[in-house]
Amino acid sequence: MEAGPGPAAVPVAAVLPAGGSGERLGGATPKQFCALQGRPLVSYAVRALERINWISDIIVVVSPENIETMKSIVEKYGHKRVTVVKGGITRHRSIFNGLKVFAENGFSNQLLQKPEVVIIHDAVRPFVEEDILSKVVVAAKEHGAAGAIRPLVSTVIASAPDGFLDHSLERARYRASEMPQAFLFDIIYQAYQQCTDYDLDYGTECLHLALKYCKTNAKLIEGTADLWKVTYRRDLYAAESIIKDSLSQQVCVITDVKETVAQVGFLLCESLKSQIKVEAMSIPLSKNDSHPQINFSGECYNFIYISDKRYDIGEVQQLVDMLEKSNIPLLYPVVFIWVRLNISENISFSIGMEELSGIKKFAREVKKKNILVYGLLIQYK
Amino acid sequence: MEAGPGPAAVPVAAVLPAGGSGERLGGATPKQFCALQGRPLVSYAVRALERINWISDIIVVVSPENIETMKSIVEKYGHKRVTVVKGGITRHRSIFNGLKVFAENGFSNQLLQKPEVVIIHDAVRPFVEEDILSKVVVAAKEHGAAGAIRPLVSTVIASAPDGFLDHSLERARYRASEMPQAFLFDIIYQAYQQCTDYDLDYGTECLHLALKYCKTNAKLIEGTADLWKVTYRRDLYAAESIIKDSLSQQVCVITDVKETVAQVGFLLCESLKSQIKVEAMSIPLSKNDSHPQINFSGECYNFIYISDKRYDIGEVQQLVDMLEKSNIPLLYPVVFIWVRLNISENISFSIGMEELSGIKKFAREVKKKNILVYGLLIQYK
Repeated sequence: MEAGPGPAAVPVAAVLPAGGSGERLGGATPKQFCALQGRPLVSYAVRALERINWISDIIVVVSPENIETMKSIVEKYGHKRVTVVKGGITRHRSIFNGLKVFAENGFSNQLLQKPEVVIIHDAVRPFVEEDILSKVVVAAKEHGAAGAIRPLVSTVIASAPDGFLDHSLERARYRASEMPQAFLFDIIYQAYQQCTDYDLDYGTECLHLALKYCKTNAKLIEGTADLWKVTYRRDLYAAESIIKDSLSQQVCVITDVKETVAQVGFLLCESLKSQIKVEAMSIPLSKNDSHPQINFSGECYNFIYISDKRYDIGEVQQLVDMLEKSNIPLLYPVVFIWVRLNISENISFSIGMEELSGIKKFAREVKKKNILVYGLLIQYK
Repeated sequence: MEAGPGPAAVPVAAVLPAGGSGERLGGATPKQFCALQGRPLVSYAVRALERINWISDIIVVVSPENIETMKSIVEKYGHKRVTVVKGGITRHRSIFNGLKVFAENGFSNQLLQKPEVVIIHDAVRPFVEEDILSKVVVAAKEHGAAGAIRPLVSTVIASAPDGFLDHSLERARYRASEMPQAFLFDIIYQAYQQCTDYDLDYGTECLHLALKYCKTNAKLIEGTADLWKVTYRRDLYAAESIIKDSLSQQVCVITDVKETVAQVGFLLCESLKSQIKVEAMSIPLSKNDSHPQINFSGECYNFIYISDKRYDIGEVQQLVDMLEKSNIPLLYPVVFIWVRLNISENISFSIGMEELSGIKKFAREVKKKNILVYGLLIQYK
């Protein structure tokens, strides 16, 4: 995937503060490193950003003791365009460190190219979609700052120092400030440079800094419910259920480039589309090419591979090897359906059955690696 | 369970508004009627209140079209001390209707006895504990009104009419107002009688009404994280996981009153206590008494029954029958471990094995009813 220009046709980078201690969760592991379906929460958040090709760099800021953990997560899950940076003792200090990577030497191996717009997101908000990222970036380009908001779930009240109700806020007039937010880099960086130690130690709201120090009133964008922040243990339960749900509802259809096969693949995609999230992939797969470039991005765990070649275990083996190397089967059972399309008319039923029993034997072997292979033979005229 | 005086030694009742449309959930079923582990959410909330013996009446307020649904839930799950009342079109109007049951004729079959303190809770907050209920009741008795609060999860911001940030609130100075709340009945009822149609139609905060119309500043009580409100689909996922977790971590130890057996039961409870939530139950069980009063309250799904009687399938059958009638096995697999304590020394190993194989046969039968019976034979000196 190649980095392209952002929705506002400007260079965009993202900072992902992941330095929290997770004390509200009750437990030793900071929540961004808690495993959901075997994979750390922060890895889902990184993936949500890296699949968007107009985000050039993703700066993950973690506390010093977690630098190595984070680096091993980046390696294990094959994250790209990620720079791991040492955080400060508060959220604001961590974000500031993340921004410095673009402006000062010595915060990463190299000074990264300064983006025009920078997204600030959260390691504990794994479900951010391209739509809202695009909206905050466009608004930030135009107005200097922008942030996602949500309606308040509870009434907000002010308590007097003696522990009694002082007053309650009219719910409709207020909003919860969520992530992602986006800023013109120069605005948010300037705000951080000017702000006081008190701001850095006790504040948490980037929009507030942009307003206070740069007189920039952020544009507020209504976000969807899935922007919520994993805060308590119950949120981990919820996130895990959402991940399970979404994994089972995606399928990737792989065909080679040959016309007949691609056509069947297209028809299959069209008919599946109404019920399931479908991704189509067309590959020039041949045994001569020992490194076919299939990008198993980790977004999908169900694959349908359509081929018109005679049964060739090497071909299936090659795809299964790639899946294995992608680390996906470490986390989830991967379903791989091999559809053998017989377009010629001169195949007997018994030969087809032979092919299928070959696949069956192969399936038993790779099942140990958490990959479930099924074979399907179709006579097609 | 007999109703006793409340923690402040005053009569206490509860109003449970359950009239919401659940539009934020996205789905046709209002969230209070969504099934978690097969049981509607509202039933968990009712149970959380009814297990507290100092709450005399529980008024569940539902929208007119759900009256029958609610009544059938009350019947199916054997809820006690519940009155189902027709709600209004807003939350405040529903709560007002619930309160009228204690003050005006015609809102239920009979005028219920007016409590001194009334708890207002939520049908979609299923995990309320006695501790916080007790605290708000005591505080309401002393100060007229009290409510549970939680720290804010997100920064709260005020938006200008043009959709830009106006200002953000300093998070530490504000709190989220949660449930339960409690009031002196006369205060909250007077507040509702005086408040305007605008309040009834657009307000949601009972503490605000008590302050505005009765000059009563509510005492604010820090609640635990489990007070959260089921609002979005993800919250249903979370609630279901919490229920599953808690079910698997409770066990009820049943013994008869005979000293030796009760003693073993006591020792077992003590040693289990550190790892699991244990409830002990001592019953005078005999075949002559055809209606032993065991209250399988639906709080527990794992039972250990300790007996020193010779193998008697009738005895186990009797307990399993009671379990079945409790409706619990409709929802969850119930685990029933029958521990046969052999205190006399004149039993041969083979006779014990015979007993166990009898239990095994019985277990196969009741497994179809979702009750898993296990037998354990212990030689005890």
